[in-house]
Amino acid sequence: MIVVMATNATAEQIEHMVERVEQLGLKAHVIQGTEHTVIAAIGEKREETKESLEMGPGVSAVVPILAPYKVASREVKPTPTQIQCGSLTIGAGTLGVIAGPCSVESEEQLIASARAVKAAGATALRGGAFKPRTSPYSFQGMKKEGLKLLAAAREETGLAIVTEVVSTDDVDLVAEYADVLQVGARNMQNYRLLEAVGKSDRAVLLKRGASATMDELLLAAEYILNEGNPNVMLCERGIRTFESHTRFTLPLASVSYLHRKTHLPVVIDPSHGTGHAYMVPDMAVAAVAAGADGLIVEVHPDPENALSDGYQSLNFDLFEETMERCRRVAEAVDMTLPAVSST
Amino acid sequence: MIVVMATNATAEQIEHMVERVEQLGLKAHVIQGTEHTVIAAIGEKREETKESLEMGPGVSAVVPILAPYKVASREVKPTPTQIQCGSLTIGAGTLGVIAGPCSVESEEQLIASARAVKAAGATALRGGAFKPRTSPYSFQGMKKEGLKLLAAAREETGLAIVTEVVSTDDVDLVAEYADVLQVGARNMQNYRLLEAVGKSDRAVLLKRGASATMDELLLAAEYILNEGNPNVMLCERGIRTFESHTRFTLPLASVSYLHRKTHLPVVIDPSHGTGHAYMVPDMAVAAVAAGADGLIVEVHPDPENALSDGYQSLNFDLFEETMERCRRVAEAVDMTLPAVSST
Amino acid sequence: MIVVMATNATAEQIEHMVERVEQLGLKAHVIQGTEHTVIAAIGEKREETKESLEMGPGVSAVVPILAPYKVASREVKPTPTQIQCGSLTIGAGTLGVIAGPCSVESEEQLIASARAVKAAGATALRGGAFKPRTSPYSFQGMKKEGLKLLAAAREETGLAIVTEVVSTDDVDLVAEYADVLQVGARNMQNYRLLEAVGKSDRAVLLKRGASATMDELLLAAEYILNEGNPNVMLCERGIRTFESHTRFTLPLASVSYLHRKTHLPVVIDPSHGTGHAYMVPDMAVAAVAAGADGLIVEVHPDPENALSDGYQSLNFDLFEETMERCRRVAEAVDMTLPAVSST
Amino acid sequence: MIVVMATNATAEQIEHMVERVEQLGLKAHVIQGTEHTVIAAIGEKREETKESLEMGPGVSAVVPILAPYKVASREVKPTPTQIQCGSLTIGAGTLGVIAGPCSVESEEQLIASARAVKAAGATALRGGAFKPRTSPYSFQGMKKEGLKLLAAAREETGLAIVTEVVSTDDVDLVAEYADVLQVGARNMQNYRLLEAVGKSDRAVLLKRGASATMDELLLAAEYILNEGNPNVMLCERGIRTFESHTRFTLPLASVSYLHRKTHLPVVIDPSHGTGHAYMVPDMAVAAVAAGADGLIVEVHPDPENALSDGYQSLNFDLFEETMERCRRVAEAVDMTLPAVSST
Repeated sequence: MIVVMATNATAEQIEHMVERVEQLGLKAHVIQGTEHTVIAAIGEKREETKESLEMGPGVSAVVPILAPYKVASREVKPTPTQIQCGSLTIGAGTLGVIAGPCSVESEEQLIASARAVKAAGATALRGGAFKPRTSPYSFQGMKKEGLKLLAAAREETGLAIVTEVVSTDDVDLVAEYADVLQVGARNMQNYRLLEAVGKSDRAVLLKRGASATMDELLLAAEYILNEGNPNVMLCERGIRTFESHTRFTLPLASVSYLHRKTHLPVVIDPSHGTGHAYMVPDMAVAAVAAGADGLIVEVHPDPENALSDGYQSLNFDLFEETMERCRRVAEAVDMTLPAVSST
Repeated sequence: MIVVMATNATAEQIEHMVERVEQLGLKAHVIQGTEHTVIAAIGEKREETKESLEMGPGVSAVVPILAPYKVASREVKPTPTQIQCGSLTIGAGTLGVIAGPCSVESEEQLIASARAVKAAGATALRGGAFKPRTSPYSFQGMKKEGLKLLAAAREETGLAIVTEVVSTDDVDLVAEYADVLQVGARNMQNYRLLEAVGKSDRAVLLKRGASATMDELLLAAEYILNEGNPNVMLCERGIRTFESHTRFTLPLASVSYLHRKTHLPVVIDPSHGTGHAYMVPDMAVAAVAAGADGLIVEVHPDPENALSDGYQSLNFDLFEETMERCRRVAEAVDMTLPAVSST
Repeated sequence: MIVVMATNATAEQIEHMVERVEQLGLKAHVIQGTEHTVIAAIGEKREETKESLEMGPGVSAVVPILAPYKVASREVKPTPTQIQCGSLTIGAGTLGVIAGPCSVESEEQLIASARAVKAAGATALRGGAFKPRTSPYSFQGMKKEGLKLLAAAREETGLAIVTEVVSTDDVDLVAEYADVLQVGARNMQNYRLLEAVGKSDRAVLLKRGASATMDELLLAAEYILNEGNPNVMLCERGIRTFESHTRFTLPLASVSYLHRKTHLPVVIDPSHGTGHAYMVPDMAVAAVAAGADGLIVEVHPDPENALSDGYQSLNFDLFEETMERCRRVAEAVDMTLPAVSST
Repeated sequence: MIVVMATNATAEQIEHMVERVEQLGLKAHVIQGTEHTVIAAIGEKREETKESLEMGPGVSAVVPILAPYKVASREVKPTPTQIQCGSLTIGAGTLGVIAGPCSVESEEQLIASARAVKAAGATALRGGAFKPRTSPYSFQGMKKEGLKLLAAAREETGLAIVTEVVSTDDVDLVAEYADVLQVGARNMQNYRLLEAVGKSDRAVLLKRGASATMDELLLAAEYILNEGNPNVMLCERGIRTFESHTRFTLPLASVSYLHRKTHLPVVIDPSHGTGHAYMVPDMAVAAVAAGADGLIVEVHPDPENALSDGYQSLNFDLFEETMERCRRVAEAVDMTLPAVSST
C-alpha cells in the first residue's frame, strides 16, 4: 500500500501516518519525492486497511497494491479451473453452451426446448423456476413445479440443469433438482445468498451485477469460494451505460481481463448482454472468438408468446444457425465443443 | 402503448399485430403515417405486454405510455406523503435528518454519536448492525448486539432508529428494535426482502441501486407498497458513472424528478453519494436547497479509526457546522427542521 | 411523432397542441386512450420539431418515430456500401485491416512498421502526423514532416494511408498526402471539420466520440455525406463507462446495430477500445467474428519506447500472430481478407 | 510515480525497469514488499512518462503521484481567482449569473431577453450566434448578424456578453463583439480552438465535455492558460450516464472537487445539466448552495416557440422566481450577488 502525502503535509502529519501504518502491523518505508512524500506500507493485508488510512491528516491518496481477492486469483492458482457437472464441461479449452427458455412455462415448452437445444449442440439446459422480476405485476415463475419439469427434461435429454436461486430459503430445494445454481445479476451482492450457495455442493454460475466492478465480482466469487465451494463460473452479462440501443453494454474484454486475473471459467450471456434477439448470434460467435469458456443463451419455441424476455430469445432455427456459426469459430480458435451423448 | 411498424412492414404483418394487440385485451387503432404505420393500443395495462409485442413480425419499436408503477405514482395520490416514526418526521415540508455512524461498533461510540447528532439537530439516528460488505474479509457488523445498543441509544436520546436489514431471516428481529428498516442499494432488487419489509409495520428507507433507473426504484417501492406498507422513503445515494474522483455520482435532479412522479418522500445520502468527507457538507446543503425531504449522513466520533466508511464520515464538529449551514438554507427554502425534545 | 398528453390535460390544452402540430405542417390525429390522450403527428420531418412540442402545455412526452438521419440510413440505401481507396477495400464482405504506429516518429520507425504490417496482412497503413493530445505537455506530432514520411511509406509498400486531421486549416494539406482522412473521437462533433472533410474527395474514417450515441454518430456522418462525400467509414473505438480495468469499453454489438441501421462500413479499433496491448488480439478476432468490416490496430516496432500509446500498441510479432488468428476466424465467418500486391 | 512489479517479476525485469526509470531522468528507489516489488520513481514530470513505463516487462501497474496539470492547480496558486469582464464578476465569493436565450433569433427576442434577465438580477447575457448542432438539418445560428445583436443588447443593458465560438476561424470575429468566449462541451478537446482562445484577450468559459474526466477538463484549461490567457471559468454542464429521465447527469460535487484542485471559478449550467425546464430552478438553487461561483441559464421569451433548446429554457416569470430563490440561498451561504447598474 502506498500512502501519498499532500504537498503541504507537515513533518508531524508524516510521522503520524508512519505510526498509523505501524499500528496496522505493517512496515512503513518513507520516500521523499520532489513534491510529495510517500509512505510505502509493506506487508499489506487484504482487509480494508486502505480506507482507514485515507482519513489521516495530510493524506492525499492511498494506493493499494494487492488485489482485494485471494482464492479467486490467478496468482494463487495459476492454472485455469475446469468445472464438470453432468453433461456440462466448462473451462480450460472446453466450451460449455447453456441454452433454454428464460422461464419454465410448461412441460411442452420445456421439453421441446431441451430437445432442440441439445440437437443444436448445447451442453446444458437453462430455465428459470424462481424469477426475480423488476415489476411486482410480472410473471414470477412456476417455482417448485418448474424445478420438477427441469429435472424431467434432464431425465429426457441428459442435459445438466442450470437454474436461478433468488433466496437463501430456496437453496436446498433448488439444489435438489439443479446441477448448477445461478445467482443473478441483481443478487450478486446479496451476501447471505452467496454464503448459502457457497455451502452447497452444487456448482454456481455467478452473474456480474449491472454496475459491479471486476473487483466486486471477484470478491462476490470469493464469498462463495471461502465457504468451501470451488466450482464457480463467472458470467459477464452486460453493464449499465449510456447506450440505449442495447439493453446493457456487453464488454467482451472482460474475458481477456478475467482470464488474466482469475482461474475461474468465464461465461458470456449475449441475450441479456444485448437485449435484442437479432444481436445475439453475432455476440455469441464474438464471445467464442474472444476466448470465452461458455455461453448462456435464451431460446424459446415461440419468442413472440414467451412469458418473459421474448424480445431477446432465439427461436429454434436461429439457435441452430447460431450454433453452426459458433462451431466454425470455435474450431478456428482451437476450442472444443463436446457433443452430449443420449441418456 | 404505441406499436411502430417498420417502413417495409407488409399488410399481413400489420394485420397480425392488430390481432396480437386485441388478444391482449386492448383496442387497436391503426394510423397510416407518411413513412411508418403505427398501431395505438388502447387500454394498456401495467404488466409487461410491451415486451411480448416487440418480437412481432415487422415491428420496429413499442412505446409504452403508462408508467409501469401505480401505487407509488403521483397520479394515483397527488398529495405528498408525510411519514412519521418516533422522532422522525419527513416529507410535505418537514426535513428529516438521519445521522450516525456507518457501523455500530461499541456502546461508547454509539451513545456519543447519538448525543452529538441530536445536539446538532438530527432527528433520527442511523447505525448498521448487519453490514453488507463487498469483501468477505471486512467487518460484518455486531448483529443482534448492535441492535440492542441502538435501542439503548433511542432510550437515552429519544431519537428514532434507522438500521439496515440484509436478509428476510432478520426482518422480524430488526423490526423489534428499529423504527425504520433500511434496504440497502445492493438489495434494492432483492424482491423477497422487499416483500418481507412490505409485510412489516415499520417504515422503510429504500436506497436506490447504483445502476437502477428511476422506474426500477419506483417498482421496487411498489413491491413494498403492494404488501400493504405505505411508509416508504426513497433514498438517492449516487449512481455508478465514469467519474472516479467521487465514489458515486450524486444526481440531485432525482429530487425534482421524484417529486413530480411520486408522492413518497425523498432522502439524499451525501456520504455514499460522494465518498469523501470533505464533499459531504456541500452536498448536504445543496440537497436541502434542491428540496429534498431528508438527509442521511454518516457521523463518527473518530473517522480515522472507524471500522467502516471512515473516509466519508464527518466528525462531530464538522457535522455540527454542516447542520448550521443546512438550517440556514432550509430557512431560505421554507423547509421546517423540527427540534427533537428530550426523553 | 406521437405527442402524449398528461392524464390531467385539459380539452383546451389538447386543442392547443393539435393547432401546434398543424402549424408545423403535420396532420394531427387524436386518439383517446383509457388514461392518456395521444396526438399522432403525421408527416414528421427530420428537423427538431420534437423539441418545440415538448414545451407545450399539458404535454407529458413526445415520441419521434423517424430516425433523425437520412442519407446514412439503410432505409434510403438498403445495400451495404463498399469503399475502395488505393490498397484498402472495406465493406460488403471484404475485411479491411488498417495498422501502424499511433504517431509517426521517424522514417525508420514508419518504414519498418509499414513493411511489417503489410507482411502480416494489413491492407492500409495508419500513423498520426497531427496528434490531438489530452495534455499540452505531450508530443504533438511531426505534422507536415510526418505526412511526407507517410507518403514515402505508401511509395515503398503500396499501402493506402490513413491519418488524422484535427483542424479545418489542415484538411487540404492532409488530403494531399493521405488516402483516408481520419476524424478522431474528440472531433466527432466538430461540425466545421466534418463539413470540411465532406468537401474533400478523400474517404473519411469517422471515429465515434467516447460518449456519443449511435444517433449522434450517424448524424455526424450525415454532416459529411451531406457535403457530397459518400465514402464514410464509421469506427467504434469504445465508450466511457464506469469500467476502469479497460481505458474505454468496447461494445461490439455496435457492429450488429450499425449494420441494421446504416449501409456504411463499420471498423473496430481494439487498441483504443481496450487500452491494453494484451487485450487487443482477443478483441480483434472477436470483432471479425462479430462481422466488422474493418480493423484499425496500433502497431509499433518498440512499444516500450513509443512516443504515444505504447501501452496499447502491439509489437510486430504479436501483430503477426493476431493477423493469423484473424485470418482463421475471417474464414470461419466467410469474410474475404485480400492480399496487397507489391508496388 | 510508483512502478508496481508483478508478483512473478524476475530480478532482470526489476533491474530493467530501474534502468528505464533512470533513462527518463528520474531517481529509482526499489522497495521489496511481501508479495510485490515496487519502484518509486522520484522527480516525476508531468509529461506522459507513465505510459511509456506501463509496457515494461514484468510491470503490473504504474501509479502517477502528480496531477497532470500545473498552471490550473491550486497547489501552484492557492487563492481563488476572480474574473471580471464588464458587468460580470465571478469567483472568490461573488456569484455571476449568465442568462439568456440558447440562440439569438431576432432583435426583439434578444433585447426583450436582455432586459428581462437584467431586471431579474442576471449579471451577464448569453446567446448563441454560432450554434454547434447535432443534426445538419437544425438551425445553425445567425452568425455575424447575431453577434451584432448581442453587442446592441450590451449597449442597451450594460450586460457583458457570453457567446460561443466553434471554430478557430471565428475567434477574432467573436472576440470583437463578445466579453466572454464560450468553448462548448463538444469542443472541449478541440485543441486548436483552445490554443486560439488562449491567445485572445477575452475571458473564456470552458464547458466540460459530456464524458470528460476532471483531469481532462483541467488539462483543456491548461491549454488555454499556457497560451497566456489567465481568465478561464470552468463550467460543469452534466455528464453522460445511464440516466434517461434527465438529458445529462449534473454532478454538483464537481464544485467541491474543483474548488479543492483549482483556483479557477466554477460555473454550473442547470439547463443542459438537466434538459428539462421544470428541473432548472431546483438545480440552480442547489448549485448556489453547493458553493458554485456562477450560473449559466437558458431563458427565452417564449420557450414553446424557441428555435433551439426550448424544452430546457425558462420563461421570464420562471427565471425571475428562480433568481428570487437563488438570492435567498446565496445570502444563506454568504455569497454576494451584485446588481448591474444601468448604462
